Amino acid sequence: MIKKVELEVLNIGIKQNLSDAVCMKIPNDSALAMVCTKNKFAAAPVVISKTNIQNNRIKYLFVNSGNANACTGIVGYNNAQQYSRKLSAKLNCKSEELLIFSTGVIGKQLPMNKILSSIHNSNFSFKSTWEQASKSIMTTDKYNKFINKTFTIQGQQIRMNAICKGAGMIEPNMATMLAFMELNIKLSKSAISKLIKHVVDNSFNRISVDGDMSTNDSFVIIATGETETIDYDVDVTSFALLKKNITKICQDLCKMIVSDGEGSTKIIEIDVNNAQSESQAKKIAFAIANSNLVKTAMFGCDPNWGRVMAKIGSTNIDVDINKITLLINDHMIFCRGEIDRRCNIEVLEQSMKNREIFLNINLNSGRSRYKVMCSDLSHEYVDTNSLYTT
Amino acid sequence: MIKKVELEVLNIGIKQNLSDAVCMKIPNDSALAMVCTKNKFAAAPVVISKTNIQNNRIKYLFVNSGNANACTGIVGYNNAQQYSRKLSAKLNCKSEELLIFSTGVIGKQLPMNKILSSIHNSNFSFKSTWEQASKSIMTTDKYNKFINKTFTIQGQQIRMNAICKGAGMIEPNMATMLAFMELNIKLSKSAISKLIKHVVDNSFNRISVDGDMSTNDSFVIIATGETETIDYDVDVTSFALLKKNITKICQDLCKMIVSDGEGSTKIIEIDVNNAQSESQAKKIAFAIANSNLVKTAMFGCDPNWGRVMAKIGSTNIDVDINKITLLINDHMIFCRGEIDRRCNIEVLEQSMKNREIFLNINLNSGRSRYKVMCSDLSHEYVDTNSLYTT
Repeated sequence: MIKKVELEVLNIGIKQNLSDAVCMKIPNDSALAMVCTKNKFAAAPVVISKTNIQNNRIKYLFVNSGNANACTGIVGYNNAQQYSRKLSAKLNCKSEELLIFSTGVIGKQLPMNKILSSIHNSNFSFKSTWEQASKSIMTTDKYNKFINKTFTIQGQQIRMNAICKGAGMIEPNMATMLAFMELNIKLSKSAISKLIKHVVDNSFNRISVDGDMSTNDSFVIIATGETETIDYDVDVTSFALLKKNITKICQDLCKMIVSDGEGSTKIIEIDVNNAQSESQAKKIAFAIANSNLVKTAMFGCDPNWGRVMAKIGSTNIDVDINKITLLINDHMIFCRGEIDRRCNIEVLEQSMKNREIFLNINLNSGRSRYKVMCSDLSHEYVDTNSLYTT
Repeated sequence: MIKKVELEVLNIGIKQNLSDAVCMKIPNDSALAMVCTKNKFAAAPVVISKTNIQNNRIKYLFVNSGNANACTGIVGYNNAQQYSRKLSAKLNCKSEELLIFSTGVIGKQLPMNKILSSIHNSNFSFKSTWEQASKSIMTTDKYNKFINKTFTIQGQQIRMNAICKGAGMIEPNMATMLAFMELNIKLSKSAISKLIKHVVDNSFNRISVDGDMSTNDSFVIIATGETETIDYDVDVTSFALLKKNITKICQDLCKMIVSDGEGSTKIIEIDVNNAQSESQAKKIAFAIANSNLVKTAMFGCDPNWGRVMAKIGSTNIDVDINKITLLINDHMIFCRGEIDRRCNIEVLEQSMKNREIFLNINLNSGRSRYKVMCSDLSHEYVDTNSLYTT
């Protein structure tokens, strides 16, 4: 029996003449798991969805772009409830059986008249594609982001669809930007929860565009149960393979997000090795990823390693500068407390003109490791964010 | 008896045809206090000066610009000791009686031959002015920064000279960029230590250009003891007035630094009020000051208050969004959980074209307060920092 998420892309009147919403119909008996922003001022739809996913079987997801419905007070909360009721009446379910998501500008109230009448007038035939859905959730994204892929575990072919959006306010901190994934396998509540935690910790939580955490970040995995040959609660090897495959897919989505980060001209991978603990490695990696002095140097293809070292020193983590080595694009540039004179700076500079730059920091003081991906800081970043109107 | 700091501005061969060093001769029996960077990878001269100020009477200060002598390993440390010995031989003191400071590019070794021969050839007549000294310590600064001022405490006129530099890597975190101040009064070791702590906490520790902490930040106060009528250890009222005056002067120096921050077109003051604790207010103030999304919005004269609120929410501090009010340039724009509809956005936008912008955040949950000053994020910031050569 085919069990798949069905999609309806809509225009609900937030963006002119562009799709600005998608409704997802979830097959019966699907398992869902969700990770949301830790922002204290999470948007109204996030607050509502966090309640609904705990108490109910979820029948539909509804996502709008162009308006975040965040910092909109009691009016914004009531608006979210009102269109939830309208939707559930239209779709013949309870409003608690919906998950709702919003992304876009913060602080504006939704155009409720337009939204309610477009819900009323839509026929919800659920004939849209994942690609169309990926377009309907874009904000400052330059291109839509989706992956569909099949992969095999123990001889069984698994089908996966995923869409995501995210160009600014990217530093999720235990959550993520908007992303939705369909898997056609059967997973228990417990297995899907373990899966999403592992995946997020190793993908969406390891990227930064600007060190700013959104009020609306959410990631949902839907396991439809179409294929139920493998019991992932019991078969440890298969579950490990599943985690590995899904993590890889989400890392690819991350790369799309960073690559499309506002004004991004580079993807910078920061790999901190041999730290005393993972938390130390993580702190150093994010400190570098969010240093404007490092990000502008990368934009300028300038191997300004002094800024990287100064940033490590500023973290207050007890590391011995004489033990640290720093490699940029595999060229050793710093070791034994000073510049490595054997480094061919011209060759290194040339290599920094590539779209991807790798910073490898070896602390030589332990066995822990953490990797972060970030974008650079360009003129276009300043343009995008100084001209973007409230 | 006149007791004042005497100055010798030099060219020691780091910058071509520009003064790049200053030597300061400290009157006998002066009291000195110093605050330095907390960066773990503090430059060699910082390490040496921290030792020397504890053990010795200080006779001279020596500062060079153009080269930070940071991340230069054992070679850099030995170089600092070598020119200290050369200087002390020339000036007829012990090398432990010197404080030395460097600022400029990180990771390059000093041109020792030039430095040693220029020390050898200089006549050290100590006829330079504070203004000349302020020019000799510049790096990416667009203009030199000095204040000379007299003020009166209990009828007694006090003379003060101060110079500072600092345009990038400005977030001191319990320290400061390079600044030197002369006061012609007598202060005990204990009084001058109390004074510098109070002043730094209320001035240099409250500014940010880019959230990056330098390897070389230092601030020194020299009290020459020329005027010794008031005993500041005993006269509490006079000491309070002294702290107030010196804090005000250092806040003025801070404003010069932020105003000259790399690519700065705005000075933004962030005033967080009625927090549960000063540390909460400080955390929120610095989070906003270092948000690229806020800084670019300010550059664009855009009252994008949603970014300010999202940043407050991301700090993980337990505040009630419905109690918060946000004013930009005295215009209330956010209250009761959403935009204040009475706000005249056009008038507000017009006011943001001024050089100074004031963000006032009232948390309405306690009595603590913290103020931070920062610069915006402009095209020129990206230029300065992507083109700056290592």
